[in-house]
Order: sequence, then structure tokens, then C-alpha cells
Amino acid sequence: MSQGGADDDGEAKNCEDGEVNMAAWILGVKTIKIQPYHLPSLGPHDVKVRIKALGICGSDIHYYKTMRCADFVLKNPMVLGHECAGIIEEVGTEVKSLALGDRVALEAGISCQQCNLCKGGLYNLCRGMKFFGSASGPTNGSLANKVVHPANLCFKLPENVSLEEGAMCEPLSVAVHACRRANISLATNVLIMGAGPIGLFTLLASRAFGAPRIVIVDVDDCRLSIAKELGADEIVRVSTSIQDVGEEVLLIQKAMASGIDVSFDCVGYDKTMSTALYATRSGGKVCLIGLAQSEMTVPLTPAAAREVDVIGIFRYRNTWPICIELLRTGKINLKPLITHRFGFSQKELEEGFEASARGGDAIKIMFNL
Amino acid sequence: MSQGGADDDGEAKNCEDGEVNMAAWILGVKTIKIQPYHLPSLGPHDVKVRIKALGICGSDIHYYKTMRCADFVLKNPMVLGHECAGIIEEVGTEVKSLALGDRVALEAGISCQQCNLCKGGLYNLCRGMKFFGSASGPTNGSLANKVVHPANLCFKLPENVSLEEGAMCEPLSVAVHACRRANISLATNVLIMGAGPIGLFTLLASRAFGAPRIVIVDVDDCRLSIAKELGADEIVRVSTSIQDVGEEVLLIQKAMASGIDVSFDCVGYDKTMSTALYATRSGGKVCLIGLAQSEMTVPLTPAAAREVDVIGIFRYRNTWPICIELLRTGKINLKPLITHRFGFSQKELEEGFEASARGGDAIKIMFNL
Amino acid sequence: MSQGGADDDGEAKNCEDGEVNMAAWILGVKTIKIQPYHLPSLGPHDVKVRIKALGICGSDIHYYKTMRCADFVLKNPMVLGHECAGIIEEVGTEVKSLALGDRVALEAGISCQQCNLCKGGLYNLCRGMKFFGSASGPTNGSLANKVVHPANLCFKLPENVSLEEGAMCEPLSVAVHACRRANISLATNVLIMGAGPIGLFTLLASRAFGAPRIVIVDVDDCRLSIAKELGADEIVRVSTSIQDVGEEVLLIQKAMASGIDVSFDCVGYDKTMSTALYATRSGGKVCLIGLAQSEMTVPLTPAAAREVDVIGIFRYRNTWPICIELLRTGKINLKPLITHRFGFSQKELEEGFEASARGGDAIKIMFNL
Amino acid sequence: MSQGGADDDGEAKNCEDGEVNMAAWILGVKTIKIQPYHLPSLGPHDVKVRIKALGICGSDIHYYKTMRCADFVLKNPMVLGHECAGIIEEVGTEVKSLALGDRVALEAGISCQQCNLCKGGLYNLCRGMKFFGSASGPTNGSLANKVVHPANLCFKLPENVSLEEGAMCEPLSVAVHACRRANISLATNVLIMGAGPIGLFTLLASRAFGAPRIVIVDVDDCRLSIAKELGADEIVRVSTSIQDVGEEVLLIQKAMASGIDVSFDCVGYDKTMSTALYATRSGGKVCLIGLAQSEMTVPLTPAAAREVDVIGIFRYRNTWPICIELLRTGKINLKPLITHRFGFSQKELEEGFEASARGGDAIKIMFNL
Repeated sequence: MSQGGADDDGEAKNCEDGEVNMAAWILGVKTIKIQPYHLPSLGPHDVKVRIKALGICGSDIHYYKTMRCADFVLKNPMVLGHECAGIIEEVGTEVKSLALGDRVALEAGISCQQCNLCKGGLYNLCRGMKFFGSASGPTNGSLANKVVHPANLCFKLPENVSLEEGAMCEPLSVAVHACRRANISLATNVLIMGAGPIGLFTLLASRAFGAPRIVIVDVDDCRLSIAKELGADEIVRVSTSIQDVGEEVLLIQKAMASGIDVSFDCVGYDKTMSTALYATRSGGKVCLIGLAQSEMTVPLTPAAAREVDVIGIFRYRNTWPICIELLRTGKINLKPLITHRFGFSQKELEEGFEASARGGDAIKIMFNL
Repeated sequence: MSQGGADDDGEAKNCEDGEVNMAAWILGVKTIKIQPYHLPSLGPHDVKVRIKALGICGSDIHYYKTMRCADFVLKNPMVLGHECAGIIEEVGTEVKSLALGDRVALEAGISCQQCNLCKGGLYNLCRGMKFFGSASGPTNGSLANKVVHPANLCFKLPENVSLEEGAMCEPLSVAVHACRRANISLATNVLIMGAGPIGLFTLLASRAFGAPRIVIVDVDDCRLSIAKELGADEIVRVSTSIQDVGEEVLLIQKAMASGIDVSFDCVGYDKTMSTALYATRSGGKVCLIGLAQSEMTVPLTPAAAREVDVIGIFRYRNTWPICIELLRTGKINLKPLITHRFGFSQKELEEGFEASARGGDAIKIMFNL
Repeated sequence: MSQGGADDDGEAKNCEDGEVNMAAWILGVKTIKIQPYHLPSLGPHDVKVRIKALGICGSDIHYYKTMRCADFVLKNPMVLGHECAGIIEEVGTEVKSLALGDRVALEAGISCQQCNLCKGGLYNLCRGMKFFGSASGPTNGSLANKVVHPANLCFKLPENVSLEEGAMCEPLSVAVHACRRANISLATNVLIMGAGPIGLFTLLASRAFGAPRIVIVDVDDCRLSIAKELGADEIVRVSTSIQDVGEEVLLIQKAMASGIDVSFDCVGYDKTMSTALYATRSGGKVCLIGLAQSEMTVPLTPAAAREVDVIGIFRYRNTWPICIELLRTGKINLKPLITHRFGFSQKELEEGFEASARGGDAIKIMFNL
Repeated sequence: MSQGGADDDGEAKNCEDGEVNMAAWILGVKTIKIQPYHLPSLGPHDVKVRIKALGICGSDIHYYKTMRCADFVLKNPMVLGHECAGIIEEVGTEVKSLALGDRVALEAGISCQQCNLCKGGLYNLCRGMKFFGSASGPTNGSLANKVVHPANLCFKLPENVSLEEGAMCEPLSVAVHACRRANISLATNVLIMGAGPIGLFTLLASRAFGAPRIVIVDVDDCRLSIAKELGADEIVRVSTSIQDVGEEVLLIQKAMASGIDVSFDCVGYDKTMSTALYATRSGGKVCLIGLAQSEMTVPLTPAAAREVDVIGIFRYRNTWPICIELLRTGKINLKPLITHRFGFSQKELEEGFEASARGGDAIKIMFNL
């Protein structure tokens, strides 16, 4: 295991090369500080990566605002961040696939490789997962000058893919995994509920997986116009005041007369899920990505009686090579999603988290280290 | 199309062989009468079948009690019944696979064969389906002396399979289809919520599909003891007064320490579904068969975040050959499920439906014609 | 059944609208004549289509040259042709999905819809298939002014898809079916053996299915340069004089260092198949499309021991909607494949078949009727 | 990595508990000697197992007779054996799932867990696999008093499963993996070419996977009668003098009129494979397990044109839990397959290998240590 425990004392120690490694520690609600982060020693299959770009994710903001995310509560300081890319600075004795200076994107979670799920290829469901900047573990994140990580989770970037794009392989991976689980193909018309960051990544991935027609639904005109620019065939603006799901379904069916094969609920409310369940054709699928509510009141039985399946996703598995090919070939262009950039000083760190917490027009906020 | 419309006048006409064909018509709430049923003419690909055994299904009882089933409302008299087997009396000019005297089980629904779902093999989801004794259509059923049916939906029974067993291929098909959709195999530990008729058929099918360990849950000791006799490895008695789903889940997990890969909810309440969702391992499946409630309040998001998928089923497709092989090889013995038998007189007809409507210890009620 | 027997006398009869329907009959080796073709009467689910565009296929040329194709031998005159599109002139009484004047592409085969394969969605494998212009049946083809065909096999073309493109949905369907069986996706690097018409359609389909890297192999520089223009990432020219398959494999591996996930053998010789089997990565697939040889001497065991599967394809199933979406969205542009066009006179008919039989630079030869 | 290199000097060193660990070393053609085997130190995730039962496999005999197996050549002494079970004697510091005294079956190969194939769950195809007693590596085997092995590859045996049965999980795994890849189910009629040990294991596994009808083909009456006893529905005796594959196919089709869905070629000759390809129904599969020939001359094109796929298998993945459940529930009884037993002395070692090399009536030869 190459990742330092999150409850490290954070005491400054010299790296081998004389520098002190600094990282963004969350210390309490709305309290993040750049402090020294002592890296674990490099194992034979590990690499040391100098982080160059890191994007803020919704879960980072949950920790920032509340010191918790879903059921996981932070009790000790932890380094945040997990959407990242950087440059190889040191390689373990057994590492052959990577060399000093290689530009790499980092897959964020280290699984146990010993349980049945790992051995069966479903490592994202591993209960022993150590995930960058997650309180389950807990495990320190990668908003740091440097991290130590297994070489097999660092993926070399082609020349025409930037480090910022490399960092966005992480959120793109969620969408790619969802499209793969939902079996999006040339024969799949897609409905996306929600045009926030997750919805937009899902839109781009659906398009890349070949979906011939995509309709996206939101309450916000501005988000919908971005979705339109990014390639949605149809946009449907709904109102939070509409009580009747049936009305929404009619609007969607009007916009997409040829039928919906797969719906992605990128929000996760009773209403968005109900709309998705009704709007999807018999034998289709609804993929639940957004997790806004835990208990949901939804018309599950009528959907089941039309063999509309509900599938869930948790993070991703084996997606980095696909994401990198999508970026290399230009099938997906993630650059328009970066709306804000910050440096890695205490001041800019705080500004970045505040901007992200405010939401508004922010899609992806990137730190350049 | 070979099946007479359900709104036929029911006027007596002579069959070619001089007999009047009689059938059990539902005329109003709790009003069924044996009356003449004029059969449509035999098409070149059709056969005429003398019905010998027919089982009562839950949907028959819904019509009997309320003149409706799910969203479908009966406005005119209709012949009831769809779980049946009989003997070939006449074959159409193009029929080569069947001959006079063949004993056959009848698949109950005729699909359009022209829509995308039919052409893709998902004919059970066809919107133009004509299904024996269903108000959607509407289409007359098969509780009749004789019916006309497409030859390709009549499946020859081996010598060692009785006509009553043949009739039970229909409810068994639902369970077989569920097991196939849920991919039950030698590696699948199964939880079944509900030990009513559907639960018991699902238990038998799961066993036949190879499930190494099956736990079944119900509130009724009597049903659970039947389930035990039929091969459940573990039975868990729960109480309707238990409010906390977590308690139920613990009982189940204690009974099946090696984990649940697939759960079948054969009831379809908030509570049974919630229990199933929590009890199933990450990456597993919950198959919703019972349809007691329409809207459901369930912990869908936590399940989705563990990639526990919810799959539905509607009837069956391409299941008769499998059911017949299961009966021929003795992998499934359905005979213990027949708890009552009636003849086809007006008096026994009414007794049969009343017995079935009462429920109680009735599992499968069979008419012998 | 709506298709006239191939052994019709061919006697001229008036169509309802006063015209005599003319068709291209093969009468003997290298003898095709435009002669009257009496259409069967229109069934309730049929449409009458005025054919406007028809492409010549390799199997047409086999009949033209030898009066046979594979194991099927022609004993009587037959109308040739099956890659076609046209305009609806008449609709059966039950047809709701199509109207007079609709431009449609025709799926070429009518399956029995009653056998297990049809009911399971594998209708292309139906032994009772009636296929346009095929000696198995035999069944008359569609190189005719008009044909009668089931409405559900006629697919409406969007405005931006031409009738010629509609006709090419047929050969494209073979490639689409192959890509679907081989599960081509964003994660599949592809090798194509052979840059003839089948290879080129497969190239276009693989690209549309998302294959990030495609290498194509041929002995002919001209074909390879066309492949390059159509989007092949790498081309490998091999020589018929190379005896050693290993040499070819090295060339391919050099051209595609990231490995081959799926190979399509669009030729079907010992050598092309051996190269494909060796070049494909462990756990990959080789899809055999070209059928140049029957018995093959190939290294099947070493491939099996690396779990490289060999999958075959026969025509296609449920592909027209996908093809039409690919053309509508511009993901595939088939127009550059049409190298020759002919009218529907006796003289041009003969010229068209001769040009196609010569091969050379001909890719797709189209008749405009 | 916990497994000692095969080129260890073999010098005797004391185990911690004072005993010298002895193992069966192959030193040259037909030269095996019991000599000391110094175990590697126990890693935190490893266990030390006292081997109690070990079966001889065909590959062991290849090394015994020729110092090679397939393309792998032995240059240095190596401990043979890989079908084994034993008792836990020591557990690494991190091992929680196993305890001293546990009876376990050992999965034979250790994969790298870092390559794409491992991460995707296809670890059996890993190129870095260290497999007990295999020259690829090379890696020492488990015909030894004790071995050190990763805990996650040691599977606890239920009380009613013997250590000998535990050892046979290894060959059974090959058959289980084949059945799983070929998707054997309640709807799959099976043909097995060859009634040798592999054929018999495949027969038992096919039965357990639910195959309703199984026909097995061999040239040897004695083997066929064993197959019959083990549950084959039909046996077909063929003659090596039959030249015409068509004749064999007719015999098989006569024995199994309802058609063959999946064929297993457990031999791997031109002739057995040709028979399998012809005998399998359109849309079915042929699984090639036996590897008697490398280049094969077979009718691959006609099979491909009926979408009969050829799938290969290499060892197994994630099969031990299934095998153990099959043994626990009694769905498979392997005991009748053990025809010879030997102790672990130099004399009996040689006798065991000689008996196995002779073949004859030997099915499974077991060493009891």
C-alpha cells in the first residue's frame, strides 16, 4: 500500500530531493490549509508524481462544507482532491511502463485485489478501496505537490492531451462507466435528466458512445444552452412548479418522438427519477447517477412490468484508457467545461473552494500546481 | 390472427363436429357463466385444441372480483383463463410440427411479429399482444372446451409430463423468465421475498437454475414450511409488526452468511423491496416480480451506489421448451402445488373461483375439462 | 407471404395501373434479360414499392457467372438483386406506418416468424427465410420496376438520405451486424484483413461503432489508399509472395503497437485467417466475414488457448434502423463507394453486370430505375 | 510474490518448525526425485499449507516424458504438480479469512493483478501468471510437503468435502470455466467429443450447469460406458476408420434429434472439430478444450456462415467457489474418477507417474501426502 493514512500528523519532513511536500488539508468545516504532507516511501511498483492539474469535485465540496460526504464523516485532517494529472518524478524498482518526465492521469482508487469483486473485475465495488481524499478509509487525496501512487493506476497522456484534460479523465470516467453499464451504442436514444456537470459529462460520453439522439432536461435555461452547444439534439426546459410528472413526460416524448432507450438520472430526486421511469420505452434502462435523495418514492412497479431496468453506478472501473483515447481522437472535447482556474496558494485555494461551493456558472474549477 | 374478439356475442353456433363449444365467460363482478363460445375459423398455421387442464391465476381472480386487472378494465363479457393444456383436434393446412392427438401446453399470448420488439426477440413486450383472457385487447381466454391457437405456440408434451403439469408451464414460465433475466446460475445465492404461489414457483425455478443456496422470507409459518419442503435452504419468518427493515435484513444475513447475489421480490411492497435492496450484495440484482404497490418508497439511491440493479419482468418469452424439459427430466416437480381440483360444470366453476378468491391454503387450483 | 415464387412463368400481365412490371431475370450463365414480372397480390400488411436504386452484390455476380452461389443452384429463371430502395406506391389495408410517396429502404429477407430462431430474435438464421434474389427458396429479387414486400421490412428514409444510400443499407447491414456481434466499441482496436468492398464497409462501420484505431491489410496499393481516405489509421501492404504469416503479423503489430482487440477477416483464406488469429490479443475476437475458402487450415488451437474466439456472421438482423441513423447523422458517408451508375435498359443492365464481374476499380455499382 | 523460483538450488534448509520440506522435483526426462524444497518466506497476505492430496494432470506427464509442455521448455529442475489441497499451518500477519487447521483447496496460478486483463477480471490470460509447476515463469509446483501461497487463492472446504475432492477442484475448474464461457444452461443440449478425463469432467459440469440432454462421442467402449454411468444421456461410438465426418454427424443427430446447442471438443483433432462444427445448430457454439493438434484443417467457413462460434478456454478464472458449492451440494460427485492412489515416497512417486503416463484405465491418479 502506497498511500499515507489520512491521520498522518502532517508534520513537515524533507522529501528526498530537499523540498517539503505541501498539500491542501481540510481541518474543519470551511477550513482548508496548505500544510506539509509527508509521503509514504515508494514501493517497487509505485511512482512519485508531481501533480500539475487538479479539478474540484462535488464530494470535495461536501467535505469542505460539512466535513462529511454521504455516510462518511471526517474526524481528522485529510488531504482533499482526486481529479488529477501530473508528471512522473520517480519510479519504483519494478516499474517498467513509465519513466521520469512522463505526463500521466491518475486513477483515484486503490482496490484490495484480493476479494471476489476485485478478482472478478468489479474492483470499483471493493470494500477495501483506498480512494484519494475520501473519508472511507480514510485516505489522503492528491491536491498536493506530489503523491505516491501505484504505477498501474497512472496512465500516460498522448502529446495532444493536456494535463488539465488528463485530470478530467476522473469525472469523465463516471460518465463512461455509466454509458458502458447502460450499453449506449449506435442504437440507443438517450434522455438525460439534469444539465449540471454530471449531466454534461454524461452528454459528452453518450455522444461519444454513438447515441444517435440525445434529449436533455433541466430547469435552467443557461445550463440547457450549454448542453445544446455541447451537442444535445433536443433540450427540454421544465419548471420546478410543474407538479405532474406526466406533463414532463409528454414534453420529452414530443421532443423525441422516436422513443427513449436509456435514461440517465443525473439528479436523483423522486421527480426526475419518476419522469425517467415513465419516459423510457419498454425493455429500456434507467441509470441512476445523481444521488440527491436516499429514499425515493417512484413508480417502480409499472416500470418493472415493462422490463425497464434500473441500474446504478459507483465510480468506474477500467475507464482511463478509454477516456484517454476519446481525448486523443478528439471525440470528446472537455476544454469548454473548465470555467475557472486557480493557482496553488493559500489564498487561491480558498477562492477556488468558495467559487465551487457557490455553484452558479461554475462547471469545472481547476487548480494548476 | 386466430383468436376471436372478446366482444363476440357469445351466441351458440355449432362446431364443425356437431358439438357446441362452451366456455367460462365473465359477465360482471363475481359473475361467471358457462356459455357457448363460437371459435374463429382455423388458419393455415393454426391448430384446434381440446382443453383438458386449466389453472386459475391471480389475474383471473382480479377480473372475477373487480372486472379489471391493473389498468385494464373489462367492458364486455370475456372468456377467462390462460394456464392450459389440451389435445390437438385439428391442424391447419400448413402445420407440420403437430398431429391429431398430440398432447400440448399452450403459450398464452400472440404477439404481432412485426414491431421492433418482436423482431428483436422481446415479443413479450409487444404492444399488440393478444393474450388469453386479458382485457388488454381484449382477447378471449382458454377456459373452454376448445380453442384455436397458432401451432407455434403449442408445445408437445413428453409422455411422462401430464396435462396438468403442461398447464402449469404458464406460471412456471414467469419464474423461468425471471431466473433467466436475473442470470441465476451455480454461482448465485438467492433471496425470495414471499412464499405465496409466485414465490414457490420462483423457488423451484431458482433451484433448477442451479442456485446453491436459497433463503425465503414470509410472515406465514405454513407457507414457509411448504417452501422448506420444496427445497428452500433457509426460511426466515418475519412479522408485519416489524417496522425496521434493518432488523429483517439482519435476520436474512444471519440465515445466509455467504451473501445474497440475487433477490426476487415476489410481493412488491415498500417493505419487501426495501429489505431486498439492502440485503443484496454490491453488484447483485433485485428482480421485482410481485406488483402489490404501484408507487414505492424505497432506498433506491444507496442500492444504485452499490450497483445493485433492479430488474423487472413481464410474463415470459421462449420459456415453454425449457419448462417442458424441466418437467421431463424431473428437475422440477410441480404436482405438490396443486391443492384443489374442479370439473367444468357451472357449479364447480363457481366453487373453483371462490376457493381461489379466498386464498388460504390454496396454491394452484386446477380445472379438469 | 408476399413474394412471388422464382419459378413464375414471367408472363407479362398488366399491373393495376396499366403498366407492365419489368424485372431483370437471370436465364442462364451470363444471360440476363429484362422481362415482365407478375407481382403477387398485396397482402394486408404489405406495400408495393417502385424501386429507384439497386446495387449489385457479389452474390448477384456469382449467379450471373455460374447460376449458383455457395451450395445453392438455380434451375429456373429468377429475378436478381436485393440491395434496393424505392418509393411506396400502394399500401395494404392494415399498414399504418407507411404512406404513398414515402421513400424507403428494403430489408431483403422475409423470415418465417414461427421457428425458435425467429422467436428468439435470431431471424437471420431462420431456415425458412425467403431472400430477394436467392436460389435458396428460390425467391425472386428486386431488380424490377416494382416489388411487393412486407411493410415492416420497409424503412422510411429521412430527407437527407438519398435512395442510393438507402439501397446501400443492405451491404452496410452486413458490416453493422458484424460490428455488433464482435462488440466493437470505444475500447476496441480493429484489424481488417482485405480492403475490398466488404472490407471498406467494415472499416466505415467499425469507425462508426467507435473503434479508436483501425489497421487494414491488403495486397493492393490502390485499395489501401481508398481505405486510408475512408479513415483507416494504418494501412499495411502485404505480398501474396510472403509465405510466412509471422512476417505479416509483425508488420501489423508494428503498425498497431497498442494491440488488436478484434480482427475482421473480410477475405476468408487460410492465410488471412491465420494472420488474424495470431495478430489478435488474448481474450479478443476474430470475426470471419469473407468466405473465400470452405475448409481452412488455421492455427485454431493456439488461438483457443488464448481465448481468442472465432465468430461468424450470416447477413444481418435488425440493422436497418441503425444504418439509417448512421446515414442521417453523417457518421457514415457511403457516397464515395459508388463508382459506377447504370440505367435500367437491357444494354445498361448487361454493362453493369459485366463491369461488376470484371471487378478492377469497381466498388459499388448502382442501377437507377 | 510468494512462490519460490523454479531454479532454486533445492538445497535443504530447515523450515521454522524444524522439518525439512520435501518436494517432487523433475530433473530430466522420466527422472523425478523427492528432494528438499526451500520455501520462500511467508508474506503478510500468504499462508503456509501442508499439502495432503495432489492429482496428476496431463501437463505433469508432458514434463515427465519430455521436459516440455506446449511451447514451454524446462531447463532447470522444477517441483511438479498443481492439483492440490491441504491444511493451513501458518498464516501471514494480514490474513483474516483463514486459520490454522483449515482444510483448503488451492487455486494454482498467481496473476500480476496490474495488467489490463487482471484488472478486467480476465486474470487467467495474464502474461505474468506464475502457475504451480509450469515452465512458463518457471514456477515450482505443489507436489511437496508444504507450499506458501496467497491466502486469497486458498479456499476453505466444507466438512462434507474431502481433501481429495478439494484437489480435483483444479481439473473441475477447467470444465466449469468452459461451461460458463459456453453459457451452458437449462436450454442447452450438449455434445462432447471425447470421453477421456477432460471429457468426463466436462460431462459432469455440463450436467451440473443444467444441460437437459448430453451426448458423448468416443472410439472406446469402456470410456463410453463410464460416461453413461456418470450421466450421459446418449453415447455414440465412432471408429477411427470412419473417414467421412458426415457419417459421424448423422450418428450424432440420430442420437440427439432435438439438436445440439453447444459442442465441446475435448480432443482437438481435425476430425473431432469438424464433426463438432457440422453437428452444432445454427447460432450455437463449439468450445475447443482439447489441444491435440496446433494447425487444424476444419470447415470454418460453413460454420461461420451459420453463426456457429468457436470459443477457446485457457485454464479458469474465479471457479473455486463454484466447484466447492457443486461438491458440497452433491451436484457433482468426483470420487468415482479417482482410479489410483499413491503415497509420497520415491517409489510410489515413480509408480504414480508411470501409471499416469501409461494411460489405459487411469482417469485420475491421486497422491496422498
